[in-house]
Amino acid sequence: VDADADEVVEDLVDPLHPADVAHLIEQLDDKDRKEFLRVWPGGIEGEVISELDDNLREEVIDSLDEEELAEAVRDLDSDDVVDLIEDLDDEQTEAVLEALDDSDRALVEQALTYPEESAGRHMQVELVRGPEHWTVGDAIDFLRSDVELPEQFYHIILVDPRMKPVGYVTLGRILSSDRKTPLKELEEDSFRTFNVEQDVEEVAQAINHYHMITAPVVDDDDRLIGVITIDDAMAFLEEEAEEDILRLAGVGEGSLSDRVIETTKNRFPWLAVNLATAILASLVIAMFEETLSGLVALAILMPIVASMGGNAGTQSLTVAVRALATRDLTDANVWRVVRREVLVGLVNGIIFAVVMGAVGYFWFGNLTLAYVIGAAMVINLAVAGLAGTGVPIILEKLGIDPALASGAFVTTVTDVVGFFAFLGLAALWLL
Amino acid sequence: VDADADEVVEDLVDPLHPADVAHLIEQLDDKDRKEFLRVWPGGIEGEVISELDDNLREEVIDSLDEEELAEAVRDLDSDDVVDLIEDLDDEQTEAVLEALDDSDRALVEQALTYPEESAGRHMQVELVRGPEHWTVGDAIDFLRSDVELPEQFYHIILVDPRMKPVGYVTLGRILSSDRKTPLKELEEDSFRTFNVEQDVEEVAQAINHYHMITAPVVDDDDRLIGVITIDDAMAFLEEEAEEDILRLAGVGEGSLSDRVIETTKNRFPWLAVNLATAILASLVIAMFEETLSGLVALAILMPIVASMGGNAGTQSLTVAVRALATRDLTDANVWRVVRREVLVGLVNGIIFAVVMGAVGYFWFGNLTLAYVIGAAMVINLAVAGLAGTGVPIILEKLGIDPALASGAFVTTVTDVVGFFAFLGLAALWLL
Repeated sequence: VDADADEVVEDLVDPLHPADVAHLIEQLDDKDRKEFLRVWPGGIEGEVISELDDNLREEVIDSLDEEELAEAVRDLDSDDVVDLIEDLDDEQTEAVLEALDDSDRALVEQALTYPEESAGRHMQVELVRGPEHWTVGDAIDFLRSDVELPEQFYHIILVDPRMKPVGYVTLGRILSSDRKTPLKELEEDSFRTFNVEQDVEEVAQAINHYHMITAPVVDDDDRLIGVITIDDAMAFLEEEAEEDILRLAGVGEGSLSDRVIETTKNRFPWLAVNLATAILASLVIAMFEETLSGLVALAILMPIVASMGGNAGTQSLTVAVRALATRDLTDANVWRVVRREVLVGLVNGIIFAVVMGAVGYFWFGNLTLAYVIGAAMVINLAVAGLAGTGVPIILEKLGIDPALASGAFVTTVTDVVGFFAFLGLAALWLL
Repeated sequence: VDADADEVVEDLVDPLHPADVAHLIEQLDDKDRKEFLRVWPGGIEGEVISELDDNLREEVIDSLDEEELAEAVRDLDSDDVVDLIEDLDDEQTEAVLEALDDSDRALVEQALTYPEESAGRHMQVELVRGPEHWTVGDAIDFLRSDVELPEQFYHIILVDPRMKPVGYVTLGRILSSDRKTPLKELEEDSFRTFNVEQDVEEVAQAINHYHMITAPVVDDDDRLIGVITIDDAMAFLEEEAEEDILRLAGVGEGSLSDRVIETTKNRFPWLAVNLATAILASLVIAMFEETLSGLVALAILMPIVASMGGNAGTQSLTVAVRALATRDLTDANVWRVVRREVLVGLVNGIIFAVVMGAVGYFWFGNLTLAYVIGAAMVINLAVAGLAGTGVPIILEKLGIDPALASGAFVTTVTDVVGFFAFLGLAALWLL
């Protein structure tokens, strides 16, 4: 992006979808991005900001003057404004709220009173509803009248006189039916409502599970106050899966456009936890200092037992963490899954015990050493299956995110058990 | 599930959504599931089968007689039948195809000619299209006529006389406009088409990226032949993210309802690869047998260096694998990302070198040992950043799934480099 290229930029960016412009901005390095924002005529659009990575939003919003910001947020749906505000500091939040007109501001402030990650925070209030006694003709006349409609909508939600949603009808059904048909007769089976305080991830999963396009959100009095649409649910589930993947690897929050210092900070805590657990494992090794100095082959082979346990544990824990996240692992099948993982660990443990015993025997010509590494392998892989499922299940019960915390616990268990079993059996049998 | 409980089962299952029935079946153990299928009056519905885990479909289909199977598949959309057939053996495929009527069978057989994972395999052919000159009134009259409509549809796709799609209109726009309005005037900005052979994951990502509800699919002559809808795209992306998570952990395919033997088989290859790399690392350790027997502290501390490198490498590779999957990591920013990861490794390496050097010094009272472990830590964490990004990028270029293969390579590198740097420096400086 060159400094004297204002018009080129405009010509390039104008035909692009806001999501593509955001993607382009994310790919630029710091210097180019600043330049790009500076030369962009008329300031960035709201839709581009709402498509941007969280960590770039603050920077971009800071680059706008008050009028440009007002312009940008005014076009957004209420849920996009709420999503935007969640990541801003107080001063910027104030600026965005002031840029909205009164009724929009009231809606956004209302949404901010609901808990984070609740349906209320993520719903859009723009929706189409009608009384349950409407016919197709009533609906069409209403839609053709001067009423302000949402940008996108796919259902008419039927409400009773107390505003309680009682069903919904797809626009396809309305369009293909006679004007006199009562909407009641065209209702969809998949209809269900969600409370405003419900976890939005649960709502998104229900949308996926039941193939819903629109999920009506109700308040504690069962009155219709918003909808969560499938495109938002899809984006949300994608983000959640992404977060789970990164958390499992100990990466935490963070995106590709973060700088070195931010990234270092994000990675640091997990590495620190790992250092602590690695030192703990070393303390276990140190308990067997004498055994180790008696036979150097032990030092050479011992990482293998720990490494196999760590890998088997990671396999089990990943399956358990995802099954918990998708509600496939429930109280009904928890014991079956734990038992299966322990059995899988045992079976694989026995196979690799034979393999590794043979390797150890041919390498060092010591049959007892082969028994030691074989036995340690079986023990550690069975324990890996138990810890790999048990730890995430217990963490979930305690209300701790299993994706975030399981890895450290499980590797500690497999390292400690691996070294202890291997060196302990060596101390007993070999020396 | 009790044997004499036919009617209870019917009463329980009847009001449930097919997705819930499938979920229920998945949660049962082998014995209960067989019993459940046996007592289910009238045989399982097609929609339930298509919601089931892949590994249970075969079992369930085997439990149906010919007539029940025919009944089950006849209600399904063409894309669901294709999805179902992909997992069946030849005999079952034959049975399903025979159960369809002629026109449906032709559609399914056509879809099966497209490559696996292509848009053509996952599209539904049921769609609503109209000539580009239609008005709102024309569209409504067409939809109200006797024509057979898809279960769910949200757009009318406009085609030119050669059947090339030229735009689409949401049903909301049609319903809220006057009968005389030409559809051309109501077209959506987000319109774009996808080739039938394009990777369905790309199509699903585009649907998410551009907030599309319907993605029109065209053949090589640009003629409209199907659509991929957002609910299918959402389910598909969820499955892909799931697969990536499981692959990263070396779990491969497999689901919670797999049995012990299947699960053991699925986990085995990754553990075998890990055993090979662990033995390789042990060979590196064995090169320094003399150094090790000279100072037992080395055996105690050496797993720490390898473990920290393994973790840092996993962090970098997870970020890289996901960024490749979501197309955030491109040729435009690859060097910036690699450089960032190496720098992050260096900075964290220096911090943990100081910490671990201090721990090593106070533990063993040997200053040179502290320098050795510190230097090895810096080297291994920087290498972890390089390998963690480099390996997945190279695998992707070679056409190998980086989620599946990166882990083994990266841990090999960090194990080998970790042990080599630590023991090598010890051999040079300490003895």
